[in-house]
Amino acid sequence: MHAPLDPVRWEDGALRILDQRLLPGSLRYRRLTTVEEVAEAIETLAVRGAPAIGIAAAYGVALAAGKAGSGGARTAAEAACDRLARTRPTAVNLFHALARQEAVLRRAPETTAAAELLEEANRLLAEDLDAGRRIGEAGLAILPAHRPLRVLTHCNAGGLATGGWGTALAPVYAAVRRGIPVEVLADETRPLLQGSRLTAWELARAGVPVRVLVDGAAASALLGGAVDVVLVGADRIAANGDTANKIGTLSVALAARAAGVPFYVAAPRSTFDLSLAGGAAIPVEERGAAEILGPGEHPGVGAWNPAFDITPAGLIAGWITEAGILRPPFFPEGSGDANFRASV
Amino acid sequence: MHAPLDPVRWEDGALRILDQRLLPGSLRYRRLTTVEEVAEAIETLAVRGAPAIGIAAAYGVALAAGKAGSGGARTAAEAACDRLARTRPTAVNLFHALARQEAVLRRAPETTAAAELLEEANRLLAEDLDAGRRIGEAGLAILPAHRPLRVLTHCNAGGLATGGWGTALAPVYAAVRRGIPVEVLADETRPLLQGSRLTAWELARAGVPVRVLVDGAAASALLGGAVDVVLVGADRIAANGDTANKIGTLSVALAARAAGVPFYVAAPRSTFDLSLAGGAAIPVEERGAAEILGPGEHPGVGAWNPAFDITPAGLIAGWITEAGILRPPFFPEGSGDANFRASV
Repeated sequence: MHAPLDPVRWEDGALRILDQRLLPGSLRYRRLTTVEEVAEAIETLAVRGAPAIGIAAAYGVALAAGKAGSGGARTAAEAACDRLARTRPTAVNLFHALARQEAVLRRAPETTAAAELLEEANRLLAEDLDAGRRIGEAGLAILPAHRPLRVLTHCNAGGLATGGWGTALAPVYAAVRRGIPVEVLADETRPLLQGSRLTAWELARAGVPVRVLVDGAAASALLGGAVDVVLVGADRIAANGDTANKIGTLSVALAARAAGVPFYVAAPRSTFDLSLAGGAAIPVEERGAAEILGPGEHPGVGAWNPAFDITPAGLIAGWITEAGILRPPFFPEGSGDANFRASV
Repeated sequence: MHAPLDPVRWEDGALRILDQRLLPGSLRYRRLTTVEEVAEAIETLAVRGAPAIGIAAAYGVALAAGKAGSGGARTAAEAACDRLARTRPTAVNLFHALARQEAVLRRAPETTAAAELLEEANRLLAEDLDAGRRIGEAGLAILPAHRPLRVLTHCNAGGLATGGWGTALAPVYAAVRRGIPVEVLADETRPLLQGSRLTAWELARAGVPVRVLVDGAAASALLGGAVDVVLVGADRIAANGDTANKIGTLSVALAARAAGVPFYVAAPRSTFDLSLAGGAAIPVEERGAAEILGPGEHPGVGAWNPAFDITPAGLIAGWITEAGILRPPFFPEGSGDANFRASV
């Protein structure tokens, strides 16, 4: 099996990211040396995918503290948290990662703050890699028996979206490692084409057969009997299971329900926001018209460009996490005998 | 109100079409002087939209007969019918138009065949303009009372798709003529973007407020309460009401059902294929991967590119036709006291 993609890592005192805007045409890594560069990389989707955004932000805070040196590390790190919190509103992993760094700042003395923030960011990355492996293994348990297994996915919740193994694609990679033949239908995912640019690219790189379809064709594939299971990632999951994910996910979930095809969300615990009772409370980022209409003049024509939608929990067969296959209601860590109380 | 768009007309002994591949950047008409040029214009979507394809094909047959002159008109026209029937498989208007020309050929003597074929093509265009006006008026009866009226549409079933008034957009134009404020959400309609390129352009030209959204956002708009009614066109409608239309229509219909928003199909009788019992018998055109993936190399990546999908009749609130609002089962002309027996 191929190595993980390593889209976000610390290298020689800076954050190295794989610039996902250039894929699949060009595989280029960028070295980010200031918190502003990290913030802009997140805002412009050079680094994207809910878990990867969280990891990048954690490194951004460490970067700010390290550059400030002793005497200014804490102040610089706090300012970095403020700046990074304003980059993108929907993926909760970002806010969880910043909360972890804020907790470090509360306990660490000035002299070791920078080192401890970097340690915490490394820990977040390691946790994500571990979560990806566990999600892959947990997902194996719910994969239908049809061979080749025909998976449909939306957007990119693969290695590129995480520390390296992916969420929705983790069970695909785990299945392939076990010798199970898998074929993937990848929604192209307008407007930014994460499906055709990123998911298709990383699956092809891993030798997994993949075909791209327009988002509007997913319903035909599902109702036409061409799909055994739908696997998608998530940007934020409320306590009742309502799930924010890339715009278009809701359409896929409705079609999967109509077709009787199981629809699973795969996500690490960092994607759960148990402070929110339901999906209506999840903030949905609206992005600019140029992503849809292209640059230039469009006299008299407007655009509506929400980047995410909310899939009601009732349409979701299960949540594939590092703690196994869970079902809502989800309870916060410390409230019971497990981080998530499974109601399977 | 603006004049009709006149995308297909006979002018100075040739077929003049508006080249829809160049919109919205460039408004350019092309003069087609051979049946091969007409066939290629249909195949490459320079002329598109089920009714417009039918009209263009009818003129193509007339063109072939006219160029052949007396002695060869019938043979040339028959060959033209064969060639044009192989252009695109799904829209039945094409086959209805060719059947009308074949009927002319059966009754017309060689000496007047060319003139009679041209007359029949002119009649088809006139019928379509009349049908568009009537569909607009019939549609007014079912438009919800919310003001401004918020319409969602998919692909282009406007003036550009027909002789000039449109099908799905005909009730919008009729409402605007009556002073009813209308706002349109236009699905961009991948892969060929007929929504953002054509529907948005023609609505803006007519002064109708329009916003473009990605196809995947339609479910959010519908379930978010931002849409009062969905209006779409059709490429072929079976006797039981199952309706082929641009890929992505089925997703919109499923979301409209989930949201409790009425979903209407607007189409002239030339779009009904009463020889088919249900949608499973409708041939769905699959087009090339390059429409999705773009030109060039995509190592290891395939595509699945059906141009149409089939919306089951059960998801459709009504069929807006020149004979009023109808519901299936539909019966062929001559089988009862009306061309379509309404089961409203």
